[in-house]
Amino acid sequence: MRHELYDLAIIGAGPAGLSAAINATIRNKKVIVFETEKASTSLSKAPKITNYLGTPDISGPDLLAQFTAHALTMDVEILRVKVEAMNENEGVYNILAGNDVIPSKTLILTTGLPYRSTLPREDEMVGKGLGYCATCDGPLYRNKDVLIIAHGPEAEHEADFMAEICSKVYYLPLYKNPGQLDTRVEVLPKSKPKAIIGEEFVEGIELADGQKISTEGIFILGAETAPDRLIPGLEIGDNHIKVNRNMETNLPGVYAAGDCTGAPYQIAKAVGEGQVAGLNASKYASRQK
Amino acid sequence: MRHELYDLAIIGAGPAGLSAAINATIRNKKVIVFETEKASTSLSKAPKITNYLGTPDISGPDLLAQFTAHALTMDVEILRVKVEAMNENEGVYNILAGNDVIPSKTLILTTGLPYRSTLPREDEMVGKGLGYCATCDGPLYRNKDVLIIAHGPEAEHEADFMAEICSKVYYLPLYKNPGQLDTRVEVLPKSKPKAIIGEEFVEGIELADGQKISTEGIFILGAETAPDRLIPGLEIGDNHIKVNRNMETNLPGVYAAGDCTGAPYQIAKAVGEGQVAGLNASKYASRQK
Repeated sequence: MRHELYDLAIIGAGPAGLSAAINATIRNKKVIVFETEKASTSLSKAPKITNYLGTPDISGPDLLAQFTAHALTMDVEILRVKVEAMNENEGVYNILAGNDVIPSKTLILTTGLPYRSTLPREDEMVGKGLGYCATCDGPLYRNKDVLIIAHGPEAEHEADFMAEICSKVYYLPLYKNPGQLDTRVEVLPKSKPKAIIGEEFVEGIELADGQKISTEGIFILGAETAPDRLIPGLEIGDNHIKVNRNMETNLPGVYAAGDCTGAPYQIAKAVGEGQVAGLNASKYASRQK
Repeated sequence: MRHELYDLAIIGAGPAGLSAAINATIRNKKVIVFETEKASTSLSKAPKITNYLGTPDISGPDLLAQFTAHALTMDVEILRVKVEAMNENEGVYNILAGNDVIPSKTLILTTGLPYRSTLPREDEMVGKGLGYCATCDGPLYRNKDVLIIAHGPEAEHEADFMAEICSKVYYLPLYKNPGQLDTRVEVLPKSKPKAIIGEEFVEGIELADGQKISTEGIFILGAETAPDRLIPGLEIGDNHIKVNRNMETNLPGVYAAGDCTGAPYQIAKAVGEGQVAGLNASKYASRQK
């Protein structure tokens, strides 16, 4: 599907993303918000929040609902779809999300708490048989064996897709009650990944229960988004997206706000940073033709 | 009056200051907030605010009332008194406010929109006969003539104090309906200051109505607080207090948040920065004995 050009595309529908969205909307900008699979997990679990000024006592889910309602009052467009990848072409960012490619003049990354690798040697094996995006890297594994480490049910759709092109798909769910998968997918009994087998390239995986599985590809899916894997060249420091006081990243037209930019992981900080990012991205978009 | 040592002293009771206060209070810190004479002028005049996430439509005064109520719910101590000066002694900051000296381990400056000089050559004449604090510099003008440019009625008390020590006090009110002043104070008819007379030192002032008044001292009182005049050595850049992403200034234990740190002059930014400053100052105070 072909989309018209947005002024701002906001990746994440937590406090930072929604704050950016309402501020850019007030500035009369065309805004789209991508609600990724794990929007603001920590907020949606918080039983009691007392330090968001003006709201002395509220539960996390209620506050998040209030935030979302505010954005919807302003007709902010919120799309519930996972962003697979983003790239820049002649000053426009193209966002691959589901089956759509959505172009935008600016990006605001509000992807929440940074992804932390959980497997030993995970970082060094990225691109050597280990990946985070089935849609992007899947075709490399045509007629090969792959194993999917699934942090949440949103990985099931990708497992089914892989089953169509790979010779074998193992599926290791790290969550409860996986749904119905393609019959060609072999769902492993609940266990944990323990170690990557293979020196230069992935050759398999060892599980906590001692089982060893030979595979040429490992995909880790449904975990927190790692923004620097979504967009090439994004500068990271201390495991967070590097920003200045204007919430600019090192990439022109790309801003970040909220937990992904660093501690403290707090709502008011996220809302404030989202506002600054939203206003500055609006200015940037206005300067582009 | 002798006060016990505070963990945080917050100068300003607008959105940034109150956010810092509630966050530090949650961290179990001993907090005092100084409500200066012009707390959050722009907010208290705003008819309609739509971009503070979670509160889609509220007037400025109502939102400020909601913020203050939140702080009072948490028993935050708010003192309505003007801060005259601050200085550091062996790692403790002493705050001169009214007749009190209040010690604190840390300071958070949330003084709002930066002061802008309004008189030609104002900046170059500071300390050469031009000042902003009658209590601090008044004694230098014993038995001399001074002129007070008063932005608000809070300057009246200082005019009366000056009348006791100076040979002559002229009072130029820039606001309506000045109150009853000491009989020794000569209240000038409503006019505006136009130019400073004198090259190396202040010798007088010229008013917009053409009148010229000889005086050895000029005090500009009741305008927005200029934080770098309140605390020696504070680094300013582009007319704002310089801070990093932790809201630290160049002085150890001194933080800043809100409009005084730079644009955009917005509530969510101020609340977010206040939170970051409040949490970091709490950490700093915990590390001090």
